[in-house]
Amino acid sequence: MKLEPIGVVISPYKDREDAPRQGRESEVVSKIIIFEDYKEGMEGLEDRSHLIVLYWANRADRNILKVVPPSKTQKRGVFATRSPSRPNPISMCIVDLLEINGKILRVKGLDALDGSPVLDIKPYSPGIDSI
Amino acid sequence: MKLEPIGVVISPYKDREDAPRQGRESEVVSKIIIFEDYKEGMEGLEDRSHLIVLYWANRADRNILKVVPPSKTQKRGVFATRSPSRPNPISMCIVDLLEINGKILRVKGLDALDGSPVLDIKPYSPGIDSI
Repeated sequence: MKLEPIGVVISPYKDREDAPRQGRESEVVSKIIIFEDYKEGMEGLEDRSHLIVLYWANRADRNILKVVPPSKTQKRGVFATRSPSRPNPISMCIVDLLEINGKILRVKGLDALDGSPVLDIKPYSPGIDSI
Repeated sequence: MKLEPIGVVISPYKDREDAPRQGRESEVVSKIIIFEDYKEGMEGLEDRSHLIVLYWANRADRNILKVVPPSKTQKRGVFATRSPSRPNPISMCIVDLLEINGKILRVKGLDALDGSPVLDIKPYSPGIDSI
């Protein structure tokens, strides 16, 4: 199972310390640049207000299975946390789609670091994506 | 970017025609078996009621960028649809966690086909994962 980046994140978050614990809590605007080869897959995105972005946390540690979550003192299994460090560091973030300009999406609420490879974009549907 | 399966789905859905369009609309119970090497990462999962499951749609077509969504007549870009066919066929599903028994999770609402490789499990948090 090999992934190919479909785009890249341009973000003001340059280091892990800069990024909020969760993007949705922030007003910061990021950009997603979709690579030319995948541009055709964007058709219809302009009708959506919210998107699910899957990106690769390329600075995560893939070899740890337990972490101490922020505001906790005891270690927990990575699958019970939102730590970027996990065997397959695929991060998921729901963002507000502000604007599409050619291959560039302007989005609000993305917690990805600058330069993160984008893996997938899906429309967010409250009926199936929320409890 | 190479993925390693952390587990596998055991599901009554053997073929794409068997599966619901979206798992959350169904009452069907599936199992996720976590592989021994990753079992430690499950610690703390028992406290959660809902999980985000990322799995690999291994029968998807990775080479198409447009599809006709069900109930539509015109093609749309795959990133504006929930079709499993997309460049990186990572499917996302929110499930009810019913029970954990050793390395086996019993879950409700998973739309994955039998045998799908599981890539990641995350706790669902309404505050950040819903609008």
